[in-house]
Amino acid sequence: MDNKLTMEKLVSHCKATGFVYPGSDIYDGLANTWDYGPIGVELKNNIKRAWWKRFVQENENSYGVDAAILMNPGVWEASGHVASFSDPKMDCKTCKTRHRADNLIEAHAKGAVTPDTMTNEEMEAYIAEHHICCPRCGNFNWTPIRQFNLMFETSRGTIGDDQSKIYLRPETAQGEFVNFLNVQRTTRAKVPFGIAQIGKAFRNEITPGNFIFRTIEFEQMEHQQFCKADQSESYYNTYKQKAWQFLLDLGFNQSHLKFKDHDKLAHYAAAACDINYLFPIGWSELNGVHNRTNYDLSRHQEYSGKSMLYTDPITNEKFIPSVVEYSIGCDRLLLATLCEAYEEQQLENDTRIVMHFAPAIAPYKVAVLPLQKNLSEKAKDVYNNLRKHFMCTYDEAGSIGKRYRRQDQIGTPYCITIDFDSLDDDSVTIRDRDSMEQHRIKITDLKNYIAEKLEF
Amino acid sequence: MDNKLTMEKLVSHCKATGFVYPGSDIYDGLANTWDYGPIGVELKNNIKRAWWKRFVQENENSYGVDAAILMNPGVWEASGHVASFSDPKMDCKTCKTRHRADNLIEAHAKGAVTPDTMTNEEMEAYIAEHHICCPRCGNFNWTPIRQFNLMFETSRGTIGDDQSKIYLRPETAQGEFVNFLNVQRTTRAKVPFGIAQIGKAFRNEITPGNFIFRTIEFEQMEHQQFCKADQSESYYNTYKQKAWQFLLDLGFNQSHLKFKDHDKLAHYAAAACDINYLFPIGWSELNGVHNRTNYDLSRHQEYSGKSMLYTDPITNEKFIPSVVEYSIGCDRLLLATLCEAYEEQQLENDTRIVMHFAPAIAPYKVAVLPLQKNLSEKAKDVYNNLRKHFMCTYDEAGSIGKRYRRQDQIGTPYCITIDFDSLDDDSVTIRDRDSMEQHRIKITDLKNYIAEKLEF
Repeated sequence: MDNKLTMEKLVSHCKATGFVYPGSDIYDGLANTWDYGPIGVELKNNIKRAWWKRFVQENENSYGVDAAILMNPGVWEASGHVASFSDPKMDCKTCKTRHRADNLIEAHAKGAVTPDTMTNEEMEAYIAEHHICCPRCGNFNWTPIRQFNLMFETSRGTIGDDQSKIYLRPETAQGEFVNFLNVQRTTRAKVPFGIAQIGKAFRNEITPGNFIFRTIEFEQMEHQQFCKADQSESYYNTYKQKAWQFLLDLGFNQSHLKFKDHDKLAHYAAAACDINYLFPIGWSELNGVHNRTNYDLSRHQEYSGKSMLYTDPITNEKFIPSVVEYSIGCDRLLLATLCEAYEEQQLENDTRIVMHFAPAIAPYKVAVLPLQKNLSEKAKDVYNNLRKHFMCTYDEAGSIGKRYRRQDQIGTPYCITIDFDSLDDDSVTIRDRDSMEQHRIKITDLKNYIAEKLEF
Repeated sequence: MDNKLTMEKLVSHCKATGFVYPGSDIYDGLANTWDYGPIGVELKNNIKRAWWKRFVQENENSYGVDAAILMNPGVWEASGHVASFSDPKMDCKTCKTRHRADNLIEAHAKGAVTPDTMTNEEMEAYIAEHHICCPRCGNFNWTPIRQFNLMFETSRGTIGDDQSKIYLRPETAQGEFVNFLNVQRTTRAKVPFGIAQIGKAFRNEITPGNFIFRTIEFEQMEHQQFCKADQSESYYNTYKQKAWQFLLDLGFNQSHLKFKDHDKLAHYAAAACDINYLFPIGWSELNGVHNRTNYDLSRHQEYSGKSMLYTDPITNEKFIPSVVEYSIGCDRLLLATLCEAYEEQQLENDTRIVMHFAPAIAPYKVAVLPLQKNLSEKAKDVYNNLRKHFMCTYDEAGSIGKRYRRQDQIGTPYCITIDFDSLDDDSVTIRDRDSMEQHRIKITDLKNYIAEKLEF
């Protein structure tokens, strides 16, 4: 990562090249939503595939699910989200904007007090005493604090009354928990085993998002390991290591990563830690590993009335499995990947922006570039053959130097130039994005050469 | 497809094997939601990848996007969904259930009248005259008809009043349209070009779902071709053919497919047709191709105030591009794929259920089966090497015949048995799911042999 990388610079690069656009852009957006453009969606899909390969395909005794976003509201009663997934909010009666009381105090006190430990009454008193005004309109005209649930609500159309209220899931985890029995039954898996899921979740956040760091809809990638209580500490350590290794495999520099144990544990958790990444906004959470004990399945047993007891087929011991959760935000990982890949090189008359993605996750794997336009027939042949196997792009506009720059700034690891010799020797020049080294290769060897470089 | 396949039989097979479970199962479900299990999620991901390969990776001048589900409400004003994406609904005041007036009439009249052409007043009069009662409780105690919008509504948390109302997108298409300018700018694409997207959409449907045929949340796969008006008829025909060919590539039997032109065109459409598939519920829509003229971009120009004019770089002609849309429901295609793959073979003492998926989309590609338990070390070696490349499964429980059956019923195309000879000759027996033929192959040749069979 370049030292000078700021979030503003990255947002602008993403918008200019087609990684990420503001959501609903032509309608002046919708706060904290973003759309992935042509190369952003490839990067995102590649990250998801890489993760799935490590945590499902190659992972011992692990199974995927894809649960519906809309779940029976009983799920959110059991999980505790209906009762307590909320922030303390105040409305400015003058300009009709909503704010988090704890954030107002934090911004004002700059560390002098810790609003986390204050009651709502104490926060109201503090705000009054220090006359903290609305950051939007500057007035002091607050409603009292109300706890505002972060779940988006909507209504199911079958009946007209309040019972039809449902929620957009605020996390994917419950989709794994409520399917524990189904997955165990259909796969005949023995505990310990894992259930993984990639999917969207939604939170009615009003705090500034920092680009795709915090958005109101986001994609989570999660693996829940179901095990005996006395195995959970060992799995907790295993998944900390697996989570760390996955980031190294994606090309992260170790010095930009650190483990951070949680200062304060949730009441049900036996242990919890994050891996933090050095984002342009400072060290921030990238993913978490939690030893959740058997809280989740116990709650679902209580609320659904269905037994979550598992019988060990060898010892006949009956128990409710414990869960070790590993969870990473796909959009946040994509953001970290962009930061980690970004480099600005000062050349003589030029700035070269290079995105150093691991080849396995780069949006385009190959760019095919005819040296001159009258070589385009041969070049198209090469392009059309290669894109049966890889995401490829084709460019014949402008000088070859300019075309290399275009590919560098979207992270294409290999550029292939077709020249006049190619017509005779059926060979091309292949250029490596990172080393800028070029070498000659037979067209018939291209597929295997590239496929090998993309292994993950 | 087996003649005797019913939806009930398929639902039960899917639940028993782990393709699809009822959503929120332990909470007795949430109507018209379903969760994909371990093999269902693999099948779904493979279908999405196959589609993306054909319609983005290999498709001339086509680009993907992944737009947010939550969009600025102005989008749905422009698209017409706020004004007219609604059904005529009546509530039963006795049992508090909601029903579609047109469906009530259809079920009663059995083709004698066509509610599509009736006004709400005419429908109310018909229901009163024929004393059509509530199908749930049997009472005649209706509210008047109200137009009920199919979009799910929710509230954004920034401000407390009505202006914060937003919708879950009822279709993905607008995500491609509102990004037309962004994609064109960042890719420097020349019209004609295409934008594709795979993503979730939500509709507050109250009609019975027929398993995953119609669900309240579903995933769409869409390709929008932007072109000049006089190219649209030609692209309409091209995408009809591409849509058809994609289904053949997935292994569909032509006799289970037919084109069906729309009887009634939307006011903006120049042409529209579906491909229908012979589901167990009869011929029903699987995908659609529509010539939408330049209605979509014109409306967005009008509502957003942003010019959608494209200037042809050669002729300097300025025009608002027309759109040819190809849209297919991912869940519905998965359902059709299950139906198409399903076969029951009556054996002497047994029924063999086989899912004849094209190898490229089969959930597991390979099952590794040691002939006896003391061969498991060698078998695990083979398994661990292969699953670096493919989704594989491992099974050592029960007779080899029983294990073959388990793989057949989830559609695993290749079973590999490790026997005592394998320890000496480093070869294994590979069995083909469809022909049940077996042959001997070197372990070192397995990867390439399988990879070749999976090409799509």
